[in-house]
Amino acid sequence: MKKFLLVLLMILTVSVTDYAYAGTVKAADPAGTATGTVNDITAVKQGKPTQGELEDQVGHNKVAINMVWTLITGFLVMFMQAGFAMVETGLTRAKNANHTMAMNFMVYALGMLGFFMSGFALMFGGIGSLGTLGGFGGLAHEFSINLFGHTFGLFGTSGFFLSGGNYDVAVFALFLFEMVFMDTTATIPTGSMAERWKFSSFAIYGVVVGALIYPIFGNWVWGGGWLSQLGSMFGLGHGVVDFAGSSVVHMTGGVLALVGAAMLGPRVGKYNKDGSPNAIPGHNIPMAIVGCFILAFGWFGFNPGSSLAGGDLRISVVAVNTMIASATGAFSSMAYMWWFKTKKPDPTMMINGMLAGLVAITAPCAFVNVGSAAIIGLISGVLVIEASFFFERKLKIDDPVGAISVHGVNGAWGVLSLGLFADGSYGSGWNGVKGTVTGLFYGDPSQFFAQLIGVITNFIYVAAIGWVVFKIIGLITHGMRVDVDAELGGLDVPEMGIEGYAGIKMDKNSETPLSK
Amino acid sequence: MKKFLLVLLMILTVSVTDYAYAGTVKAADPAGTATGTVNDITAVKQGKPTQGELEDQVGHNKVAINMVWTLITGFLVMFMQAGFAMVETGLTRAKNANHTMAMNFMVYALGMLGFFMSGFALMFGGIGSLGTLGGFGGLAHEFSINLFGHTFGLFGTSGFFLSGGNYDVAVFALFLFEMVFMDTTATIPTGSMAERWKFSSFAIYGVVVGALIYPIFGNWVWGGGWLSQLGSMFGLGHGVVDFAGSSVVHMTGGVLALVGAAMLGPRVGKYNKDGSPNAIPGHNIPMAIVGCFILAFGWFGFNPGSSLAGGDLRISVVAVNTMIASATGAFSSMAYMWWFKTKKPDPTMMINGMLAGLVAITAPCAFVNVGSAAIIGLISGVLVIEASFFFERKLKIDDPVGAISVHGVNGAWGVLSLGLFADGSYGSGWNGVKGTVTGLFYGDPSQFFAQLIGVITNFIYVAAIGWVVFKIIGLITHGMRVDVDAELGGLDVPEMGIEGYAGIKMDKNSETPLSK
Amino acid sequence: MKKFLLVLLMILTVSVTDYAYAGTVKAADPAGTATGTVNDITAVKQGKPTQGELEDQVGHNKVAINMVWTLITGFLVMFMQAGFAMVETGLTRAKNANHTMAMNFMVYALGMLGFFMSGFALMFGGIGSLGTLGGFGGLAHEFSINLFGHTFGLFGTSGFFLSGGNYDVAVFALFLFEMVFMDTTATIPTGSMAERWKFSSFAIYGVVVGALIYPIFGNWVWGGGWLSQLGSMFGLGHGVVDFAGSSVVHMTGGVLALVGAAMLGPRVGKYNKDGSPNAIPGHNIPMAIVGCFILAFGWFGFNPGSSLAGGDLRISVVAVNTMIASATGAFSSMAYMWWFKTKKPDPTMMINGMLAGLVAITAPCAFVNVGSAAIIGLISGVLVIEASFFFERKLKIDDPVGAISVHGVNGAWGVLSLGLFADGSYGSGWNGVKGTVTGLFYGDPSQFFAQLIGVITNFIYVAAIGWVVFKIIGLITHGMRVDVDAELGGLDVPEMGIEGYAGIKMDKNSETPLSK
Repeated sequence: MKKFLLVLLMILTVSVTDYAYAGTVKAADPAGTATGTVNDITAVKQGKPTQGELEDQVGHNKVAINMVWTLITGFLVMFMQAGFAMVETGLTRAKNANHTMAMNFMVYALGMLGFFMSGFALMFGGIGSLGTLGGFGGLAHEFSINLFGHTFGLFGTSGFFLSGGNYDVAVFALFLFEMVFMDTTATIPTGSMAERWKFSSFAIYGVVVGALIYPIFGNWVWGGGWLSQLGSMFGLGHGVVDFAGSSVVHMTGGVLALVGAAMLGPRVGKYNKDGSPNAIPGHNIPMAIVGCFILAFGWFGFNPGSSLAGGDLRISVVAVNTMIASATGAFSSMAYMWWFKTKKPDPTMMINGMLAGLVAITAPCAFVNVGSAAIIGLISGVLVIEASFFFERKLKIDDPVGAISVHGVNGAWGVLSLGLFADGSYGSGWNGVKGTVTGLFYGDPSQFFAQLIGVITNFIYVAAIGWVVFKIIGLITHGMRVDVDAELGGLDVPEMGIEGYAGIKMDKNSETPLSK
Repeated sequence: MKKFLLVLLMILTVSVTDYAYAGTVKAADPAGTATGTVNDITAVKQGKPTQGELEDQVGHNKVAINMVWTLITGFLVMFMQAGFAMVETGLTRAKNANHTMAMNFMVYALGMLGFFMSGFALMFGGIGSLGTLGGFGGLAHEFSINLFGHTFGLFGTSGFFLSGGNYDVAVFALFLFEMVFMDTTATIPTGSMAERWKFSSFAIYGVVVGALIYPIFGNWVWGGGWLSQLGSMFGLGHGVVDFAGSSVVHMTGGVLALVGAAMLGPRVGKYNKDGSPNAIPGHNIPMAIVGCFILAFGWFGFNPGSSLAGGDLRISVVAVNTMIASATGAFSSMAYMWWFKTKKPDPTMMINGMLAGLVAITAPCAFVNVGSAAIIGLISGVLVIEASFFFERKLKIDDPVGAISVHGVNGAWGVLSLGLFADGSYGSGWNGVKGTVTGLFYGDPSQFFAQLIGVITNFIYVAAIGWVVFKIIGLITHGMRVDVDAELGGLDVPEMGIEGYAGIKMDKNSETPLSK
Repeated sequence: MKKFLLVLLMILTVSVTDYAYAGTVKAADPAGTATGTVNDITAVKQGKPTQGELEDQVGHNKVAINMVWTLITGFLVMFMQAGFAMVETGLTRAKNANHTMAMNFMVYALGMLGFFMSGFALMFGGIGSLGTLGGFGGLAHEFSINLFGHTFGLFGTSGFFLSGGNYDVAVFALFLFEMVFMDTTATIPTGSMAERWKFSSFAIYGVVVGALIYPIFGNWVWGGGWLSQLGSMFGLGHGVVDFAGSSVVHMTGGVLALVGAAMLGPRVGKYNKDGSPNAIPGHNIPMAIVGCFILAFGWFGFNPGSSLAGGDLRISVVAVNTMIASATGAFSSMAYMWWFKTKKPDPTMMINGMLAGLVAITAPCAFVNVGSAAIIGLISGVLVIEASFFFERKLKIDDPVGAISVHGVNGAWGVLSLGLFADGSYGSGWNGVKGTVTGLFYGDPSQFFAQLIGVITNFIYVAAIGWVVFKIIGLITHGMRVDVDAELGGLDVPEMGIEGYAGIKMDKNSETPLSK
């Protein structure tokens, strides 16, 4: 009876509602074909535009398309921070959930403040203008040294606090996009150093990485610094080319993760007396998988957005290359574990395989064809597994989430792969060098050589500054590592003051393996 | 005292900082009104453009707007995969969390590889150009048969591996958008077949669905195939019209989900000896609700993005129709459970009601007015509940997450509802037929008939190919179902090698009801 | 051996695949430079456009850019609902997880139906056109009263059910964007009233807030109502200015949250007999942190999107201001707790600090420089903590998630801060007043006075109507509060019919503190 009434009611609603809307088809402009005409160009005076007004509007539309694209893709990159938080927290233990999460949360705020204060200026202070987003205001001072008759750019000196002539819409758009890139670098070491890093030490690091560590190398590749000049100065291809940051962002983070994890030492219980490692399973693999999806989603901002131009239609190739490499990376990791290693399709390695593919394709994504993207991803999926085993078993470096292998190793592979696979279809005039970017397999060995210099420079610079910075932080906070009681009991209460999962029963004994 | 100092510090900061920025108001272009002018058109030569350059830039801007729109909405659709993973995992048991998650994760990679290898070519190989994204390169070969003097398109034959003349920005943009649509179909059966499907069987399915099953029907409706020709050939409205895929995507997935779940059989403990069903509650309803939000978010890419054009302003009507149908679907499901069924506003049915409304509006979203959208959603919310009870209690098909009812039944309802409610305000020239798309209630019964043919064809085709494919996979992997011990103990360790929630105490006895 | 074979296979794949793609570099248009030309303007006739066609296309492109921007940022705002759900559920107890989640879920649907039925008409029915999205169809009727020779707009009367002349692409775009803003207001009280609110009472509220409470104040500030007229009528700056809704959205929600929580009374066990409060920890802080990231992500739609125009390049300044204030808010909250309060960097206060900064910058984001944005955020981070303690300890109002302090107090602070810091670089002609919007510190005290009137009006109006509405709902549902047994045992089963976390062991005794 009730059901009958409901159905009756629905039929009545159908009749009545359709009656109400029936006559409205032509009401205003439901199809949108009459909306947006010449009158919208000169909205105020509402008449025919002059040729000058028309031309200005066309130029403004061009810049607006690039602005919208840059901002929205930047927002997607910002969201990746949630993905990092979930991957790192899911792959570590419940007793440290708040601590791992809070590091990932605050690194966004702390790194941003560092980048706002000085990082942006050091990195991009030498850039005079950026056509895609409009001309710049006052930003153009690069500190450089003169050697062998060449001027080597070292860092920028304009744009601290975005003040002065940098109060400009184009500069602000660039700041937003570059800030979220820096944030990715900053958050990578929170994974390798998780479950034992003092929050106070971390907090200082969070500011310094954005203010100093990241921007210097960034300037060398993206800010007009010396690595980008290798092509124009010495004929090495187009200089070091890194479209979206396999080296600038990921390898920097990965090398920092390596130095930090090595300095902290392994977690209690990770290694037995004979040096063999124990597995310390993460407490929430589903959280890590969802986090990986968020990262893969945000990567569509990361790579295609790095055009800084929606009008550069190459963005569709970039997006597809990114997607395909993520798939082949996940596939080859799954297959390699399943067929050659543990005989199971390990979900944590699926994640790291997809991330490895994404990291690797980040540098070459705009310069290679989709077949090469597939190959780059395939290789990265194997590489990340072998590297993980190498760091865990040979070097005895305890990296709870595999950050070094994902970001460091595959960041290097990504930069090198560009030097191999760039097919010459894109990058005309890049870094002031004529012609398109072309790799070894397509005829330009010098590009590969430039990429190699980029990788080596990254490793030396980041390892050195990372070592110094972490040492100084250790002095300030009386050691970077929490005491062993806090580590055994979980960092959430002693470090953060609050449990992660109040009211949910934990089995803490099962969490930390006993060293044998 | 400390507080006082802090407040003092803040006041000082205010003064100092404002001083630093005070003079900068007019510094560069803070309001953005002077950025983007005629000079941006001819950025290199920096002078007045010729009329030809101006016109080219206007055309380029038009395509760039469509490109940006298509890519970003495609990214949103890609993110839906995270939503599916969370809904399906949340509505199933903790002991299978890794397995359910990993299926949802790998289906993205595996399906993509299948679609890359052959799916895209079979589906869109017959499309010669796509005005909104620019002309195509070499893509245009449709395999067809000749019957009764008509040429029936069956599948495309160009674009395998995106190679050859398909290395083109427009083709790549289409590939990205269509790939993520395929992915939605691919992930639907992982819900109905959850908690008992061998991962190896699933993995093969993941490639085949993207390479073969999905693209064939997709070609018939979207790729220029025979269902899209019914209008031009036989005068049946505009042929089968499905704006964003109620049938192409959702019903295909739903029918596969039905066939797969029927072949696997119900989970251990689902049915008692007398045939009555037991409820098997999901382990994390909050996760499922968040997943549903992600899906509803991504659907704003799914439906409006299907214009493949930001310049087609009908996208705002599409977006609002999508939103309203999601609300009325959730509302009617909640009300129907609360008032007529369990007397509680069941959260799992709220989710399925919203998803049902979204699935149903997917085909008609561009062609109906908002009143009709509300009605379509209202009906779908009731439909999904009655269908769920029907499949569970009459057909004894165990569908842990309700995928068949959400996607299959409401997919069919969506396609049919277009044939009823299309109000003639949109779709001029669709599928090569003059005039706008108009449904039965607005005067064109032949459109409804075309839609009916589409639904019937989908059911027959998908059920048949699904049956064959699952049978073959069963032969390859020695049965599609895990053994009973794995099912009782949870699939995570035996299938995936790792627990989902290490260190969190589970109450496994409470999870699987005992058959009575 | 197997490894060797794999490596061999890969090398082979490299060779073969690269061969397949090698010749394709110039195939179609891989770089996208030849795609999008004059021919795309007149896609059908494929010839040179007339000057009129060219001009129309330029105007159409301009509107399309704004449409794409408004829709995509609107989608981001919609996604914030997932963030609210996660923050509120994470900060409350596991036994109420379904109830808290389901309120956050259904408020989206219920509020939308209310806004669709009458809210949009009351709020925007008086707006005649909106240049950025194209002209409107029939929408333009404001109900107003005449006092002291002035016409005070009170509410609109056109656009119910989006029917009649409102079937227009520009109106629909505005509806979508404004609907998701309303939704934010609607969901704020579900936080302060969590863990004890009857779902039936909530459901009625959900419709009424969207249909009536929110739109009235919204009309006064954004719909052409009297608060927006204070500038043109009485010379008070530019009238009440609130770029993205610190008052219209957040303070409205916060005052409703205050009234509702006060009327419901504190949760069982929250206060001891001597009036001292007990901490009731949330069950999933990681979930709350991820939710906060989603909110911060969505806020990039909320604030920059409020331009309703991608062509208004000020959006980059808005986005950066939003970002910086979120960072300084999180930082000052963390530091204030760490140095002055609990001596720990409390993660829940990091979250609330970031949200406080975001709420506060929402009104001034377009009108202030980045230094002021930093200060506004810094202050809000301290304000939210002091306000939380004030409401909890002085007023004895139990607000489980801090919604009153985050949205109410900082909403007020945001509106006032605009009156202090607006630097005169933006807002020319705002609300029909000549010149740019300028705050007290930059020379226009009358703007601050207008903002003050806005804050006071919001508090009086919302508190009054909130009190009346909640009283009436209480009469309808025989009280707004669940009975004490349901509260002690958890609302999930009695109110929603289903547990949140079936199969996961809870420690319910530890959840509710005993009153001493």
